[in-house]
Amino acid sequence: MRASVLRDGRMVYRDDVADPVPESGQVLVAIRACGICGSDLHFASHGRKVLEMTERVARGASGMDVDLEHDIFMGHEFSAEVLEAGPDTDTHPSGSIVTSIPVLLSAKGVQPIVYSNNTIGGYAERMLLSAPLLLPVPNGLDLKHAALTEPMAVGLHAVNKSNIEPGETALVLGCGPIGIAIIACLRVRGVESIVASDFSPKRRELATAMGAHQTLDAAQGSPFDIVKPTVVFEAIGVPGIIDDVLLRARAGTRLVVAGVCMEADTFHPFFAIAKEINVQFSLAYGAEEFAESLRSLAEGEIDVSPLITGEVGLDGVGAAFDDLADPERHCKILVTP
Amino acid sequence: MRASVLRDGRMVYRDDVADPVPESGQVLVAIRACGICGSDLHFASHGRKVLEMTERVARGASGMDVDLEHDIFMGHEFSAEVLEAGPDTDTHPSGSIVTSIPVLLSAKGVQPIVYSNNTIGGYAERMLLSAPLLLPVPNGLDLKHAALTEPMAVGLHAVNKSNIEPGETALVLGCGPIGIAIIACLRVRGVESIVASDFSPKRRELATAMGAHQTLDAAQGSPFDIVKPTVVFEAIGVPGIIDDVLLRARAGTRLVVAGVCMEADTFHPFFAIAKEINVQFSLAYGAEEFAESLRSLAEGEIDVSPLITGEVGLDGVGAAFDDLADPERHCKILVTP
Repeated sequence: MRASVLRDGRMVYRDDVADPVPESGQVLVAIRACGICGSDLHFASHGRKVLEMTERVARGASGMDVDLEHDIFMGHEFSAEVLEAGPDTDTHPSGSIVTSIPVLLSAKGVQPIVYSNNTIGGYAERMLLSAPLLLPVPNGLDLKHAALTEPMAVGLHAVNKSNIEPGETALVLGCGPIGIAIIACLRVRGVESIVASDFSPKRRELATAMGAHQTLDAAQGSPFDIVKPTVVFEAIGVPGIIDDVLLRARAGTRLVVAGVCMEADTFHPFFAIAKEINVQFSLAYGAEEFAESLRSLAEGEIDVSPLITGEVGLDGVGAAFDDLADPERHCKILVTP
Repeated sequence: MRASVLRDGRMVYRDDVADPVPESGQVLVAIRACGICGSDLHFASHGRKVLEMTERVARGASGMDVDLEHDIFMGHEFSAEVLEAGPDTDTHPSGSIVTSIPVLLSAKGVQPIVYSNNTIGGYAERMLLSAPLLLPVPNGLDLKHAALTEPMAVGLHAVNKSNIEPGETALVLGCGPIGIAIIACLRVRGVESIVASDFSPKRRELATAMGAHQTLDAAQGSPFDIVKPTVVFEAIGVPGIIDDVLLRARAGTRLVVAGVCMEADTFHPFFAIAKEINVQFSLAYGAEEFAESLRSLAEGEIDVSPLITGEVGLDGVGAAFDDLADPERHCKILVTP
């Protein structure tokens, strides 16, 4: 079958990947749409660093066991059509449109569907999913939108972690897909003052379309000179941002760090101590948040169509990875095999 | 009157300080005991750095307005005897033993009693306090113990910030006065597993006396190899500790940073993100916590006598500052004018 795989830092088109065969409890699905995530771009460029950091933080408990010398499957934001279940496996009728948290349960254990030499992800014609984890996409929800359940769940999780109340002011730093997902989920939660900051005019427009009440051009100075948020969402993920927030935020600020910074960073604990800041680091989501995110999309609480700025086939994934570097042109590109 | 003041980085004895005169709302008190705080030692050695950092974090809103070229009054952990009230001021009868949060209300505004060229602190014969803030020391509580209401309140505040439950395991890194106060307050809260780590055998002994269930020698390796806390209290305040906690702590750990690190520090956001760690920076206490701390001491829930390792007069403060450098000899020295 066809797939796009990571080889030597580039996405490469292949038409000779063996079809996966479902074990008991697994379901073979045809991928209908898969979003390209910033973390995939980052892994393509800095895979060795990601693996090294993951290894360090796992402290021997579990490695990612990925060999960069061999082809790597990626793609963890998908919607798919049920084809056939493994032996003794009950699932949705074939032809059903489903999505799932990107995890494959197998006799060997739990395999994250993220970066793997073996477990096929969403940049392929077909993949395996786990029958107990499948969520049917409600009738009427565009399957391209359903593919974005996953990044929207990342935003929902960050918002949940913040315990924000509707009357509080939220500042979202960075309007990439994570920042945008946070904005959309803040809006659903009823937050009445959502301020978003980014260098890119296009991204600021998108932030407004997705629910921001005010946007600020990061090039024009610090957002903290203009707004006094009680909750700050860091969705940039580069060194220096956290320290700047600690310096400029007001006392008692809750900072939710949702941007994934792989580099060492420098900060001044005293800034945070003097203001008793709370820093909540946030990653991914729970299964309930994933389901809640799908429900929000299906019920029209969140319309992700402004996010989708491009669509490519499996042979276009490499070029799409390059195109995504420009925030003026793209936010989310979908791969539709 | 007599006092010990900071001059050129050293505590200097003076016998020619003018007696302060209470304004309306203020009370003149005779200091009976004043604890020497680690932050005073730090200010004596690194006053310029402290002022610079305070200025940076205040961002022009309020400076400390302290001139290092002139004598500086310090001392913010005290018990005192009421001498006389200012004009039109109701207060406790003269002779009453009181304590107070270290803040002086005046016509000019709120003056912290911490480092000042003008507002006299606890390293003196007499000082001014604010009538509305005075707390009578309950009968029977040793006035030397009452002086330690303040550092114990710092510990109580850190414990309150952690939202720890009795069934959780707490790890306290560093058994200086703040770490010890945290341990004592964890014990009062009913936490059933309090583990404390320090390089000093004496400090570990003290930790046990104050309520730690287990102590670990920091020289023998990481505490995280031995215990799996859900709440970690950082009471060391030197660079590198926070990153080490982020690397070694388990997922979902709440880290309360109570040690005051004035230096820039390096950390890896990814360690914290991968484990969704919460970092709560903690400073000082609220007025209710101060009162609660006094109540705990008065009712015998916390016995601070093991902390008090020395006592000096006003002419002995300089030597006491030097002596406090050795954790084997000293924890808390009281100045009794």
